[in-house]
Amino acid sequence: MRSRNPRTVFTAHPIGFIRSPYRQTSAIPKGPGAQHDAEGSIELLREFSPGLMHIEGFSHLFVLWEFDRADGFDLIAHPPTDEKRPHGVFATRSPRRPNPIGLTVVELLRRDGDTLHVRGVDMLDGTPVLDIKPYLSSIPEEKLKRGWLAEAEKSRNQGT
Amino acid sequence: MRSRNPRTVFTAHPIGFIRSPYRQTSAIPKGPGAQHDAEGSIELLREFSPGLMHIEGFSHLFVLWEFDRADGFDLIAHPPTDEKRPHGVFATRSPRRPNPIGLTVVELLRRDGDTLHVRGVDMLDGTPVLDIKPYLSSIPEEKLKRGWLAEAEKSRNQGT
Repeated sequence: MRSRNPRTVFTAHPIGFIRSPYRQTSAIPKGPGAQHDAEGSIELLREFSPGLMHIEGFSHLFVLWEFDRADGFDLIAHPPTDEKRPHGVFATRSPRRPNPIGLTVVELLRRDGDTLHVRGVDMLDGTPVLDIKPYLSSIPEEKLKRGWLAEAEKSRNQGT
Repeated sequence: MRSRNPRTVFTAHPIGFIRSPYRQTSAIPKGPGAQHDAEGSIELLREFSPGLMHIEGFSHLFVLWEFDRADGFDLIAHPPTDEKRPHGVFATRSPRRPNPIGLTVVELLRRDGDTLHVRGVDMLDGTPVLDIKPYLSSIPEEKLKRGWLAEAEKSRNQGT
């Protein structure tokens, strides 16, 4: 294993903030079958708005954001989708991560100046946004294996 | 627009490093039709390895990483996929981003202790890894619109 390199540390700054109907974590749908079709918006800080040029042509976006209300991290997570077993944090979407970065795929509904109206927000209102990227291609569903999550869903559906 | 909040700044630290066949940016396939099936690995720092528990069950992972060899950012990008027009950085995958965070979907081939062998690396060798998340679902291809990129590909295919 190579040693740590001091160049490999950077300070993250918000490029904008999320407007969402969720004011507290408990309001965000979680667990098996949770639907994420809530509408909200990304309000870009004006200084970054030139970076939105031509974004209107994309139907879906990756949004990288900060879990700004998570405090510290755990390497072992206990996700609400599986009450029976703990899992490594990198095999979950737990907010308590070594780098508190969240990732959400949203559908772009429309752009209004510095504001992107989107569907599929699962962030808290006021969440800092770190980056926006175009969503360009998908892994076909039939090629996806979803590990412990698929097992937990199956177990739940069987009532065990 | 709300004011900046001092809590919304954090310092990113590597959880591990990428091993890749690419030693320089020019070696990474880019542009229309670029294939990303190169094999490589994610070598986790030992202190974070408990976070990998049960990751073996997932076929695909999101890897968040740092563009550690990019210097500064531009809000307007000139991607190699479209020589005719500039685009906003948030509508591209340019490395010169306000927060230098990269995102790659990889296929997990196998786990060997603290090392994840993966297919689909497009990072430089030695790239710092910030986070790993399970890839859980896809947007169906027929629902995706890919804006300027689709136009540039169409234009190229028509030889215009």
